[in-house]
Amino acid sequence: MNVEIISIGDELLYGKTINTNAAWIGEQLSMIGFEIEKVSTISDKKDAIEQTVTAAMQSHTVVLITGGLGPTNDDITKHVLCAMFNTQLEFYEPAYVTIQEFLRARNGEMNENNRSQAMLPKDAYLVRNDCGTAWGMWFTTDSSIVISMPGVPFEMKQMMSTYIIPKLRETFVLPAIVHRHILCTGIAEAKLAHVIAHWEAQLPNFIHLAYLPSPGVVKLRMTSIGVEVEQAKQLIAQHEAALLPLISEFVYGYDEQTLEEIIGELLLSKQATVSTAESCTGGTIAKTIVQVPGSSKYYTGSIIAYSNDIKIKQLQISPELLQTHGAVSKQVVEAMAVNCKKICNTNYAIATSGIAGPTGGTTEKPVGTVWIAIACPSKIISQHFLFGEHRERTILRTTIAALNMLQKNIE
Amino acid sequence: MNVEIISIGDELLYGKTINTNAAWIGEQLSMIGFEIEKVSTISDKKDAIEQTVTAAMQSHTVVLITGGLGPTNDDITKHVLCAMFNTQLEFYEPAYVTIQEFLRARNGEMNENNRSQAMLPKDAYLVRNDCGTAWGMWFTTDSSIVISMPGVPFEMKQMMSTYIIPKLRETFVLPAIVHRHILCTGIAEAKLAHVIAHWEAQLPNFIHLAYLPSPGVVKLRMTSIGVEVEQAKQLIAQHEAALLPLISEFVYGYDEQTLEEIIGELLLSKQATVSTAESCTGGTIAKTIVQVPGSSKYYTGSIIAYSNDIKIKQLQISPELLQTHGAVSKQVVEAMAVNCKKICNTNYAIATSGIAGPTGGTTEKPVGTVWIAIACPSKIISQHFLFGEHRERTILRTTIAALNMLQKNIE
Repeated sequence: MNVEIISIGDELLYGKTINTNAAWIGEQLSMIGFEIEKVSTISDKKDAIEQTVTAAMQSHTVVLITGGLGPTNDDITKHVLCAMFNTQLEFYEPAYVTIQEFLRARNGEMNENNRSQAMLPKDAYLVRNDCGTAWGMWFTTDSSIVISMPGVPFEMKQMMSTYIIPKLRETFVLPAIVHRHILCTGIAEAKLAHVIAHWEAQLPNFIHLAYLPSPGVVKLRMTSIGVEVEQAKQLIAQHEAALLPLISEFVYGYDEQTLEEIIGELLLSKQATVSTAESCTGGTIAKTIVQVPGSSKYYTGSIIAYSNDIKIKQLQISPELLQTHGAVSKQVVEAMAVNCKKICNTNYAIATSGIAGPTGGTTEKPVGTVWIAIACPSKIISQHFLFGEHRERTILRTTIAALNMLQKNIE
Repeated sequence: MNVEIISIGDELLYGKTINTNAAWIGEQLSMIGFEIEKVSTISDKKDAIEQTVTAAMQSHTVVLITGGLGPTNDDITKHVLCAMFNTQLEFYEPAYVTIQEFLRARNGEMNENNRSQAMLPKDAYLVRNDCGTAWGMWFTTDSSIVISMPGVPFEMKQMMSTYIIPKLRETFVLPAIVHRHILCTGIAEAKLAHVIAHWEAQLPNFIHLAYLPSPGVVKLRMTSIGVEVEQAKQLIAQHEAALLPLISEFVYGYDEQTLEEIIGELLLSKQATVSTAESCTGGTIAKTIVQVPGSSKYYTGSIIAYSNDIKIKQLQISPELLQTHGAVSKQVVEAMAVNCKKICNTNYAIATSGIAGPTGGTTEKPVGTVWIAIACPSKIISQHFLFGEHRERTILRTTIAALNMLQKNIE
């Protein structure tokens, strides 16, 4: 079943916004067996929308549109689609009610612009927006389906996941497809490829292997298309069993799990708690742990000790230790972890100290130097890293490495 | 001068790679007066490339292609373009020499795959690649220019900046273009549109207004095309002067500034410091402040008081205050800010306390309820918010609101 994605918005063409929506939609739909053939990004102009949607319908069964559904004058997608599909806008009470509720929950008031959001095409299946005021529209013609969604990523994602994908699955008979993700950290893509080269060479043709790298993480994805689901799962499991011994030290999880969720589950199951003492990561580890709903059950809080002053006062690091070894040292980061664990009264504590850059590096400790320590109930472990010169990337990679160290050492 | 960008690569369609190249090219070219009308992302298939390039040439003066120039068998762009433009590949000595040099500098050896990179079209202007082995190609026809570049972002960017953009500037007489961004927070897009409706209606035709919303922020962009630069700047400034009184309380900056950078500059200029006491944001405010290089000059650290225990022990909040008013209250969040300022010995302190959800809400304090306080040298301010049910978004909006409150109250 072939698909074209159409992203509408001047901001995408002029590079003010990167088109992450198309990538996300492409990933979701390809995972369930759709074939994404084209992504077209166009401006908010009537002619462009008309021409692109018309051309897309000629060669694609499913056309997914994002953007141009806002309440302001520059958003015209709804009007153009109504004209194309010979229908009119009419007031739709259920949408009006949800918009009203949405605004009320945010202390907002209904104005004319919001009210216009409840004007929706008469001859379309209308798709609820649980996170915003722009409803989606699903038009069906003899040869294709055209779906229009809001461009705000989290509204679009929620709408796709909850309503559009289930309805697409109902509408089409899709080829059997099985994915298995093996999540690795602590190894670069090229090195990983080298380590598993022999295993990869022996994969059967119907199992496709993809390397999906992101900073600090490489996901391996095995995909089978067209093989009956139970059989495909068995075959993939066999090949996975042969793979794991080669890379066991790098694997932290499977499929959709995140490192912070895995840690959360582990801590909950052990009724254990964690705190963080962050210097160079400046709160990013805490922020990542807190992203998980319910994290307050195992996460108590943190001390972000960016300055030496706070390290001394709040984390009770001795000025002599800082003087002798420097803030970015095994000794200081271990003391930070141990003291944090005690001060916050937790079972585990993570501590980081490093030089994120761009300044502050020396010959001995260049920008990118990071020390991470984990204080556990019965031991302290620490490790030295060199993450390179890119500030944001160093902070991110330190966060992933620290969470990974914790995960491997929960007792 | 209108442009279509064509991005070639299966990994872009299946969401494995986000198309950042198109955004970057779009930004560079729009800034010098090109009009980006379309971005097409397609697979590495011959038919798709032929059809898309042919269609693009029919309606666009400049067609920029990235991707499919690698040395492996799945990279076919060069062959498809040669066939389309009736030319052949021939060995090009200068390219061979640069490829050899490039590999030598990296201890690599020339193999057959690399050697094939020096086979380039006879009838094209060839564009040097200073960062890799795939040269660019510039084809000129009666009506349009088709430029093919490598897909590796840093090779493409270097080639664009050094060779392609200067040559495009030489080739075309470009219209003057002026953008101005006004950055707003604390107001929803629909409300903002309502507030400035009269002003917007009076904008002249040659100034285009766009609303660019992201969580907690709406950017207003005025663009003039074709009006001489100094005159356009003056006219935009005049309309901006009429706009600002309508929305002054929501404006936090202009053009490329970020809230955290603005705060950093303000604090540096006053030689002031800030600390944070975060509950519901769990480190996100700290993380955002620390993103700015050099933030250690004004940011000392924080206490993330996720649990009441840490609020009591580390932030010295009295158990009675917590008992009487609850953790999510004006009284507690103000005490958190005041104590944090004292404990961290800073001039300012930000405190947050709220119910990010999904659980923990009550009728009186539903999920999304947030209190923010700022302790300043001579006053304490606090504000109540209702950010809705989406955990991640509430954390993000609290962060933006808190930074905005700080920014407005730096004395």
